Amino acid sequence: MIAGKVIDNIWATRKSDSLKGLKFMLIEAIGGKESGKYIIAADTIGAGIGERVLICGGSSARKMLGKDDVPVDAVIVGIIDEDCIF
Amino acid sequence: MIAGKVIDNIWATRKSDSLKGLKFMLIEAIGGKESGKYIIAADTIGAGIGERVLICGGSSARKMLGKDDVPVDAVIVGIIDEDCIF
Amino acid sequence: MIAGKVIDNIWATRKSDSLKGLKFMLIEAIGGKESGKYIIAADTIGAGIGERVLICGGSSARKMLGKDDVPVDAVIVGIIDEDCIF
Amino acid sequence: MIAGKVIDNIWATRKSDSLKGLKFMLIEAIGGKESGKYIIAADTIGAGIGERVLICGGSSARKMLGKDDVPVDAVIVGIIDEDCIF
Amino acid sequence: MIAGKVIDNIWATRKSDSLKGLKFMLIEAIGGKESGKYIIAADTIGAGIGERVLICGGSSARKMLGKDDVPVDAVIVGIIDEDCIF
Repeated sequence: MIAGKVIDNIWATRKSDSLKGLKFMLIEAIGGKESGKYIIAADTIGAGIGERVLICGGSSARKMLGKDDVPVDAVIVGIIDEDCIF
Repeated sequence: MIAGKVIDNIWATRKSDSLKGLKFMLIEAIGGKESGKYIIAADTIGAGIGERVLICGGSSARKMLGKDDVPVDAVIVGIIDEDCIF
Repeated sequence: MIAGKVIDNIWATRKSDSLKGLKFMLIEAIGGKESGKYIIAADTIGAGIGERVLICGGSSARKMLGKDDVPVDAVIVGIIDEDCIF
Repeated sequence: MIAGKVIDNIWATRKSDSLKGLKFMLIEAIGGKESGKYIIAADTIGAGIGERVLICGGSSARKMLGKDDVPVDAVIVGIIDEDCIF
Repeated sequence: MIAGKVIDNIWATRKSDSLKGLKFMLIEAIGGKESGKYIIAADTIGAGIGERVLICGGSSARKMLGKDDVPVDAVIVGIIDEDCIF
């Protein structure tokens, strides 16, 4: 997983039917050499803008969505505790 | 997923039979540190040149195509709304 | 796999139910050009802060966890011997 | 997918039995920020040195080879038309 | 696949039970922009230090090991011929 900060919502009215109802967030990677990389992840946890999150990518991302036929390659799997400093 | 801007069509007359009928687009990643990276993605949504799109990669990309035996590792899964600024 | 050094624990109270009970560690890649990249990996081996570990990523990471439906894309699969210099 | 230019053949006499009979080509990524990256891909299309090709990576690469148990993570899936400028 | 040069053995006494008996090698990518990247790969071919090898990554790596439940994401699949210059 990588750690990132939620920057904003991403809206895409025209999209795959299988993505309808999913919320997408723009996330900026934080910490280490990949810091500053942008990822767009599906969010089913309810992360807010400004929060630090854990992002899971690849085929494992689909495991978060309860069905395997969704074209999603990144999801928010957790929200990093505020008092977890790194 | 990553966000990108559609740059052009990509034409490949000689290709895998399983790719016949698929449209391929050249996309440039936008935003963040990966900005400027080129990806070639299959498009089944009808994205136009200049539009900003969401790209899904890896095994999840095949989920967009309705069959699992296609050698495609990137697809356009949505078109970012024009008034979505980031 | 890549080699990394365990930097710290990562705490995320709000997370996917399927991640409950898993320990997450912040790891910094060591050696070569990717040195300084951060990865957050699940740990079922009991790695300690400061130890050098082997990290496996992608779908293979789930093979470490004994079930295939967990949204995890990186795990610690081994601890590099102290006298293994590189 | 990514676009690349075929640089040379790669010969490996000692290799996995499951790779016998496959042709491998050294390809240099072209266009965008990843330009200059080297990939070694299996070729079943008959690409020639100097041609521009489409490369598919990851698990999707195996879909090109007609069987799923081959340790190959990159294949040439198409040859870009000469008059396709980008 | 990528090409790399075998740098050294990697020893990890404490590791996943499913990795027991596997040999791990530290490999440095050669050629192109990714040159200098370190990868740790399982070796079942018998590559020696200093030899140039082909590395397969991701889920395809598990195809080399004869069973699908091993947490390994990189394997040596071939040894590049000495007279293959690139």
